[in-house]
Amino acid sequence: MQTQIEQIPGYTYGQVDPSPVSEADLDLLKQTVLFSDEDVQYLRLAGIILEDQTDAVLDVWYGFVGAHPHLARYFGKNNNLDANYLANVRRRFGKWIMDTCTRAYDQDWLNYQHEIGLRHLVKKNQTDGVDAEPIIHFRYLVAFIVPITATIKPFLASKGHSASKVEKMYAAWFKATTLTVTLWCYPYTKAGTF
Amino acid sequence: MQTQIEQIPGYTYGQVDPSPVSEADLDLLKQTVLFSDEDVQYLRLAGIILEDQTDAVLDVWYGFVGAHPHLARYFGKNNNLDANYLANVRRRFGKWIMDTCTRAYDQDWLNYQHEIGLRHLVKKNQTDGVDAEPIIHFRYLVAFIVPITATIKPFLASKGHSASKVEKMYAAWFKATTLTVTLWCYPYTKAGTF
Ligand code: HEM
Ligand code: HEM
Repeated sequence: MQTQIEQIPGYTYGQVDPSPVSEADLDLLKQTVLFSDEDVQYLRLAGIILEDQTDAVLDVWYGFVGAHPHLARYFGKNNNLDANYLANVRRRFGKWIMDTCTRAYDQDWLNYQHEIGLRHLVKKNQTDGVDAEPIIHFRYLVAFIVPITATIKPFLASKGHSASKVEKMYAAWFKATTLTVTLWCYPYTKAGTF
Repeated sequence: MQTQIEQIPGYTYGQVDPSPVSEADLDLLKQTVLFSDEDVQYLRLAGIILEDQTDAVLDVWYGFVGAHPHLARYFGKNNNLDANYLANVRRRFGKWIMDTCTRAYDQDWLNYQHEIGLRHLVKKNQTDGVDAEPIIHFRYLVAFIVPITATIKPFLASKGHSASKVEKMYAAWFKATTLTVTLWCYPYTKAGTF
C-alpha cells in the first residue's frame, strides 16, 4: 500500500483529516441508495473487470470533458489547459475507480471522500501546486453522476459476463457513484444543511 | 391548466419567483447529463406510459420512505407523521412525475425547480401550513436519485414496449431526475459555489 501511495503523486488515502460524516451516517445513506452486501460483491467483480481497462475508461471521460469547454476550463485558467495538471489528476481518478470497487467503505474511506470534495472546492489546485480555476462549480459535480455512470456499462460488458450480471454491476456502480458524489458535496453546503 | 392548478393545493407552476439559473446555464447542464432531443421524445413516451400509473409509482416511493424512519421523519415532527401533509405533498409529487415527462424545460420550468428546492429547505412546511421538521437534509436529496431512478423501470416496462425502448426511457428519466435534483440543490449551496 505504502508503495502505491508513493507512486501516485497527491494520493493521500489514509493520511487525511477526519470526515464530519460518521459511519452511522454512512449506514443511513447506504440504505437510502439501496446499497446492499450484494452491491459490494458486484463492485468487487466490476473491479476485476475494470482493472486493466481504467485507461480506456479515463479516455472516454477525459474525451467528454475535453469536448466541452464549460468542463475543460476547470483543468486550467482562462481556457488554457494545464496538461500536467490533467495528467496528475488522471492518475488519481484511475485509482478512484479501483478504490470505489475494492475498498471497504469505512472511516478511512469516508475521510478520503471528504478530502476529494475539498479538492473540488477550497483545496482545488493545492495538491498539484497549479494555478487553475479556483473551484469546480457544484452543479457539474452532481450532473456528472450521469456520464460517470452511463459510460461505464460497455466496459463492464466487455468481458463476456451475462447481461444480468452486467446489470447488477452497473446498478452497484450507480449507487456507489451517487454515494461518493453526495459525500463530496459536503463542503459546498451551507452550515447545518448537509 | 388553470383548472389543474386549482385542483392541486400548493402547486403554483408558472406563478413563482424567477430562478437564479438561466436557460443558457440549463443548456450547459443538459450537455453535462448527455440530455438530447431523443431524451425529450422518450420522456414524452414515458409520460404516456406513466400517466395512469403515477399512484402505483407513488405507492412504491412512499412505501420506501415510510419503511425508513430517517426519511419518514421529514413528513412530521418528533417522528409523528402528519398524514395530511403526506397526502398533500403526494399530489404535487405525482404532478412532478408528469411535468418531468411532458413539460418544456424553459424558464418557467427552471423557476419551479428552484421553488421545489426552496420547499425542501427554507420554505419547507409553508405551502401546506404544517409544523414539521424544518428542513430536509441535503444528503438525502442527492442520494434519492437512486431510488427515484431505479424503481421506475418496471413501470416503464409494464406496457409491452421493447427492451430497447424501455432502456431509452429509463436513461432519459435518469438524466431528467439528475438534472432536476441538481437544480433543487441551489438553495443549499454556499454563495458563489453553485
Ligand atoms: C461524478 C463526478 C466526478 C468524479 C467521480 C470525479 C472524480 C475525481 C477524482 C477521483 C479526483 C482526484 C481526487 C484525488 O485527489 O485523489 C478528481 C479531481 C478533480 N476533478 Fe473531479 N470528479 C467529478 C466531477 C468533476 C467535474 C464535473 C469536474 C470539472 C470538469 C472535475 C474536475 C476535477 C479537477 C480539476 C480535479 C483536480 C482537483 C485538484 O486540484 O485537486 N471533476 N475528480
Ligand atoms: C430525487 C429526490 C426527490 C424528489 C424527486 C422529490 C420530489 C418532491 C416533489 C415533486 C415535491 C413537491 C414540490 C411542490 O411543492 O410542487 C416534494 C416535496 C417534499 N419532499 Fe421531496 N423529493 C425528493 C427528495 C426528498 C427527500 C429525500 C425527502 C425526505 C424524505 C423529501 C421529502 C419531501 C417533503 C417533506 C416535501 C414537502 C415540502 C414542503 O413542505 O413543501 N423529498 N418532493
